[in-house]
Amino acid sequence: RMAALLDLVMDQVQEIQGSARKRGRATRPQWPMIVLRSPKGWTGPREVDGLPVEGTWRAHQVPVDNMTNPEHLRILEQWLRSYHAEELFDDKGALVAELAALPPKGQRRMSANPHANGGELLQALRLPDFREYAVKADKPGTTFDEATKVLGAFLRDVIAKNPRNFRLMGPDETASNRLSAVFDVTDRDWLAEMLPTDDHLAPDGRVMEVLSEHLCQGWLEGYLLTGRHGMFNCYEAFTHIVDAMFNQHAKWLEVTNRLPWRRPIASFNYLLSSHVWRQDHNGFTHQDPGFIDVVMNKKAEVVRVYLAPDTNCLLSIADHCLRSRQYVNVIVAGKQRSLNYLSMEDAIVHCTRGIGIWDWASNDTGEPDVVMACAGDIPTLEALAATDLIRQHLPDLKVRVVNVVDLMTLQPQTEHPHGLSDAEFDALFTTSRPVIFAYHGYPWLIHRLCYRRRNHANMHVRGYKEEGTTTTPFDMVMLNDLDRFHLVMDVIDRVPGLGSRAGHVRQRMMDERLRHRQYTRDHGEDEPDVRDWTWPY
Amino acid sequence: RMAALLDLVMDQVQEIQGSARKRGRATRPQWPMIVLRSPKGWTGPREVDGLPVEGTWRAHQVPVDNMTNPEHLRILEQWLRSYHAEELFDDKGALVAELAALPPKGQRRMSANPHANGGELLQALRLPDFREYAVKADKPGTTFDEATKVLGAFLRDVIAKNPRNFRLMGPDETASNRLSAVFDVTDRDWLAEMLPTDDHLAPDGRVMEVLSEHLCQGWLEGYLLTGRHGMFNCYEAFTHIVDAMFNQHAKWLEVTNRLPWRRPIASFNYLLSSHVWRQDHNGFTHQDPGFIDVVMNKKAEVVRVYLAPDTNCLLSIADHCLRSRQYVNVIVAGKQRSLNYLSMEDAIVHCTRGIGIWDWASNDTGEPDVVMACAGDIPTLEALAATDLIRQHLPDLKVRVVNVVDLMTLQPQTEHPHGLSDAEFDALFTTSRPVIFAYHGYPWLIHRLCYRRRNHANMHVRGYKEEGTTTTPFDMVMLNDLDRFHLVMDVIDRVPGLGSRAGHVRQRMMDERLRHRQYTRDHGEDEPDVRDWTWPY
Repeated sequence: RMAALLDLVMDQVQEIQGSARKRGRATRPQWPMIVLRSPKGWTGPREVDGLPVEGTWRAHQVPVDNMTNPEHLRILEQWLRSYHAEELFDDKGALVAELAALPPKGQRRMSANPHANGGELLQALRLPDFREYAVKADKPGTTFDEATKVLGAFLRDVIAKNPRNFRLMGPDETASNRLSAVFDVTDRDWLAEMLPTDDHLAPDGRVMEVLSEHLCQGWLEGYLLTGRHGMFNCYEAFTHIVDAMFNQHAKWLEVTNRLPWRRPIASFNYLLSSHVWRQDHNGFTHQDPGFIDVVMNKKAEVVRVYLAPDTNCLLSIADHCLRSRQYVNVIVAGKQRSLNYLSMEDAIVHCTRGIGIWDWASNDTGEPDVVMACAGDIPTLEALAATDLIRQHLPDLKVRVVNVVDLMTLQPQTEHPHGLSDAEFDALFTTSRPVIFAYHGYPWLIHRLCYRRRNHANMHVRGYKEEGTTTTPFDMVMLNDLDRFHLVMDVIDRVPGLGSRAGHVRQRMMDERLRHRQYTRDHGEDEPDVRDWTWPY
Repeated sequence: RMAALLDLVMDQVQEIQGSARKRGRATRPQWPMIVLRSPKGWTGPREVDGLPVEGTWRAHQVPVDNMTNPEHLRILEQWLRSYHAEELFDDKGALVAELAALPPKGQRRMSANPHANGGELLQALRLPDFREYAVKADKPGTTFDEATKVLGAFLRDVIAKNPRNFRLMGPDETASNRLSAVFDVTDRDWLAEMLPTDDHLAPDGRVMEVLSEHLCQGWLEGYLLTGRHGMFNCYEAFTHIVDAMFNQHAKWLEVTNRLPWRRPIASFNYLLSSHVWRQDHNGFTHQDPGFIDVVMNKKAEVVRVYLAPDTNCLLSIADHCLRSRQYVNVIVAGKQRSLNYLSMEDAIVHCTRGIGIWDWASNDTGEPDVVMACAGDIPTLEALAATDLIRQHLPDLKVRVVNVVDLMTLQPQTEHPHGLSDAEFDALFTTSRPVIFAYHGYPWLIHRLCYRRRNHANMHVRGYKEEGTTTTPFDMVMLNDLDRFHLVMDVIDRVPGLGSRAGHVRQRMMDERLRHRQYTRDHGEDEPDVRDWTWPY
């Protein structure tokens, strides 16, 4: 009866698909569904110690335990004998030939079916050359772009070139995260009723939007596991909604890495935008950069985290992630108008290294007095603006600027394949100079990554410390002491011998903070000197 | 019309409640529900630039922007004028008296209503004396109990004494987490159909079970916010499901701390049991101690994390948490049979301090050669068993055992109100001796908390490093190098001068690991010498 029902259902599925293909247009089908109700613990012991087991909640536990009780042992024996092992196996314990012939062979086996071992079906994406989307950045820190908007153009062409095996998932934020260019070539997938005012809905859209991060995550997992590619774009703070699902996917990747018959699948790519530093309208509830911390708890071999300082870097990172296999890639990138620092050529080198000194921003000629480190678009902006202030007010100070794209480089080589050797790390961060580190997320993560490094005791990290509200971008960094003025104060406090000599400068920085704060209260926006700051050298 | 409908609905609600009270028994009611459909952006601009706005998705964005466009300015003016400010305010800009008289006064105001400011309604729990549930532990580490089972008896009496303002939430794990004693005095709340085989269901049960961590979290939040008390018991790994909801509740607590009119509410108490180290049947998917890491990202003023080393400590912690206000308390405790270390008297002192030297387990008489630190029931067991091995094989070595109950003590005083001063920390952990720290969760959390401490460079932390599977308890700690034998090897590797002298002992420890691993493979369980180990001194 079950076999006949399965045949019927398969026929119905084929009919729905066939008719949609004939019409060249899908509608919302009523897929057949088989509901099989069976008693819980079916064919197990019916009753133990006078209490019903089969068909009750007790079957969810160990149905019969304590084998020193002869009655229990009898029940167990009766239960096991009910399977009639003597009919299933021959004298030598082998499955009888008649039964061994039953299961399907080769790829028809459930585990060998390519749809269950999606890597077998995986086709590399046809990727457009990401260099062609490069924005101009001839003079660092002087032109502005919206990183995710440019990425949108790249993703548009990824979709156009791969119309059958790439999807973009997200909770109704594709436009809000500025990826709207994709709608030039595709639509949001939609099979239900449409209204005249609806925008870019179609039954064959490659964008899947639903205001449920859980569904987005589940859809993309299923899509990847069956051999396709995709990206999940999400508000940074709300990615925590799928923490538990991410955990299971990462564990799955980790375990399958050890199974030789499992073919690699495409990486799970998260694009976290609308991040903690730019929630001018949404405020405190939308400020949480902690998904990175959850990700970093999983095995080094399966997780990667990239913080894009600017647009060209984001393009290079995205291209890399879309080519990778068996990882969870987390990309953090802003959507707002922000400065370009690197030409595409420089961005490729920088992102491939994952970390590097920015010569053009540094004025040290060997050993610096202080290292300004930064990771993430807003911290990079503030670190560079602080460097500018230092050059103006403390021109003797030798400052080295180090930017981190790939967080994993900070870990020891023994902990992560991307980890720098101690010699490499020391060459960048020195072994004895103060390091002021402006970081996108919770500052202690940097300590957790760097605590074994030689210069760790000199590292001072600024980041999000859970201070937030609905306010201007610059007020947000001030609330968390990540602003340019505070970074200069941190430098003054930590470079030996600078303290009293730079007393006037330090006080001026404090005054600047107060003045800028007052301006936000008076005008509801940031002062133009901050908003329109560019790299002046 | 809306007012009349509200009257009708309130009458229906009262009728349902009244009839249930008259019958003395609730059934599953069909609560009335008002569905109000209004156009999105109702009363806003109907059309901008020829595109419909009111009633469409465009009203979710800024409905009309770019005010340099005179037509847009006209639309904005028209929109604002439609509110007829001239009828609402007098010449001086004050609300006209007729309107000012409309809103309700005093507690009838929405924000001042005690049901919205639950602290106003909060009654302290009538708590039984937790000392009366103490288990015997006259000789440390020689008797066994199941910590959460004993806690269940305490919670049973909490429920009995507070039948109207305490609830226990959980995803069908009350029994699995060994809290079944509560069913002596109450049932699972249930208003739907009941079957003859159902167990402890009733329409007025104080236990709320549903296999949705989201619902449990939401229920308890609502219950606390309206002035009541409760606890959410959950499998440790699956608490991540509510990460995002925890975040919002913690942010809410933090913000309301700054509002003087907001009265404190009862703390949100998580009991994480069935933890990472005891998932013998469930395996890798059920192993994740990272909820603690998520919690620690929130403001120090609202979060507390307690790791119960044994039963009496758990009782003391639970009593403390149930009395506290405006916190999120995370209690981690095992449910399996495990050793008792402290008498109730000692447990109270130890838990109140939050951290301490266990004199009875230490053999240092001043400066130790090594500090064995531990946090969590299983790490404490392994650290003590390692201490025993050291006493046997390296009797000259002076070992100090430090147990941590309250993780926040490790942080600097400036970061958390529970943080130890540097002097206190140094007195416990020394400033120069190796510290081998056996920790319940991801090891880097301990580094993140301690990185500013003087002896941090000598701290070596073992914990869960994402190695897991379905296996025996001791194999699990071996997989993660947290086992007693590996801890002894860590001591040998880190105590200066011990390395070559203790070569034989080190090799024996390696051999013991191999022997125990083989035993688990041969017998499917742990060797009795590990399973039944007790503190022998």
